Amino acid sequence: MRYELFYWPGIQGRGEFIRLPFEEAGADYVDVGRGKDGVDAILKVLAGNLGGTRPYAPPVLKAGKVVVAQTALILHHVGADLGLAPKDDAGRRALHQHQLVVMDFLKEVHDTHHPTSSLYYEDQKAEAKRVATQFRKDRMPKYLGFFEELLGKRKFIVGNKVTYLDLSLFQCVAGMRYAFPKTMKKHEKKIPGLVALHDRIAERPRIAKYLASERRLPFGENGLFRHYPELDS
Amino acid sequence: MRYELFYWPGIQGRGEFIRLPFEEAGADYVDVGRGKDGVDAILKVLAGNLGGTRPYAPPVLKAGKVVVAQTALILHHVGADLGLAPKDDAGRRALHQHQLVVMDFLKEVHDTHHPTSSLYYEDQKAEAKRVATQFRKDRMPKYLGFFEELLGKRKFIVGNKVTYLDLSLFQCVAGMRYAFPKTMKKHEKKIPGLVALHDRIAERPRIAKYLASERRLPFGENGLFRHYPELDS
Repeated sequence: MRYELFYWPGIQGRGEFIRLPFEEAGADYVDVGRGKDGVDAILKVLAGNLGGTRPYAPPVLKAGKVVVAQTALILHHVGADLGLAPKDDAGRRALHQHQLVVMDFLKEVHDTHHPTSSLYYEDQKAEAKRVATQFRKDRMPKYLGFFEELLGKRKFIVGNKVTYLDLSLFQCVAGMRYAFPKTMKKHEKKIPGLVALHDRIAERPRIAKYLASERRLPFGENGLFRHYPELDS
Repeated sequence: MRYELFYWPGIQGRGEFIRLPFEEAGADYVDVGRGKDGVDAILKVLAGNLGGTRPYAPPVLKAGKVVVAQTALILHHVGADLGLAPKDDAGRRALHQHQLVVMDFLKEVHDTHHPTSSLYYEDQKAEAKRVATQFRKDRMPKYLGFFEELLGKRKFIVGNKVTYLDLSLFQCVAGMRYAFPKTMKKHEKKIPGLVALHDRIAERPRIAKYLASERRLPFGENGLFRHYPELDS
């Protein structure tokens, strides 16, 4: 099946959490937003032109006749088909539950530079600084600590095979390193399992090839993980 | 089956989005957090003592042998059994997708008084005011407008029977009226469908009985929807 991903071009954003599993699985997918008239195509999808359940925001995925939105739900829908989730209900549910925690974490990452989504960063720098300070002190250690504890000495968060959740955590570590390099430099010794997981994922043949390709967009100051030195420690 | 809900006592919070479906369905459930040593019980659950998939935060539900967390996922898990979700995969997925949008909305409601969760409101009033202003102007109309459009002239958001999503939207309207009464007074004419949905839900026999009972906690300034007049228009 050829999957069609609809996500804003030019940024990794939440779309990257969908791209990584497609790349790991060697799936046939089109990143429609990055093609010709990609943004128009996305706007049409948001207006409901694919039918099915109306999406509120990208990413949106067309998988055969199914149109599905919300990052965690897209992963829940395609995970088992891609071989990146257990096939049984209990395993799928466990993975989805943890992925929803990842999504909560990402929203808090976003809020460090955008306490409100409606203003430019430049127009809310003071607010962002306070939010980022608390994020570095309290929120980031709590979320990453949760996954570190879940992982323990094992190689994968759930089960004994790589899942989309492991790929998401790779992206979280990579993104945190980009956005908060000083903070992460200090903090990484408290999350050795996650750091090792990141490194193992980066070395998987298809992921390594992807990361070296043009398909992997760079991190940057339009994305979810942004490096503003004044927000780092 | 007797369901056990683990949620902080004294507030509606995200727990209310679970209580409402239980009440509508006349389900047998225990609100463990509100019983003797309720908070201790919640802390043990967060420490993993129920086994199964480790929860990150309340609400957590024990449904037979299943332990499940994350508000939207709890609803996804119990919805069909309670008769408040379609039984087919496509219908369940549609409902879950929309519920995830509700959860995003609730996080933005929370952020109007807590741009960072780590500080008291009193210590971030200036930041909260800016976030709340943009919320009232942009974010609230966008979210509520989305559901208003989905609903159209129909009685329920998905299908032709009440679902947990309708109950969630009832709670969103009720909460917005409590937290932002001036804003909502003006805005309600733009969302007549949602207002009518709210009123229909409030009149459902079991919901009406629940709302009049002691089980329905009042809104208040420890919850998700908080009324701080300075954040309203």
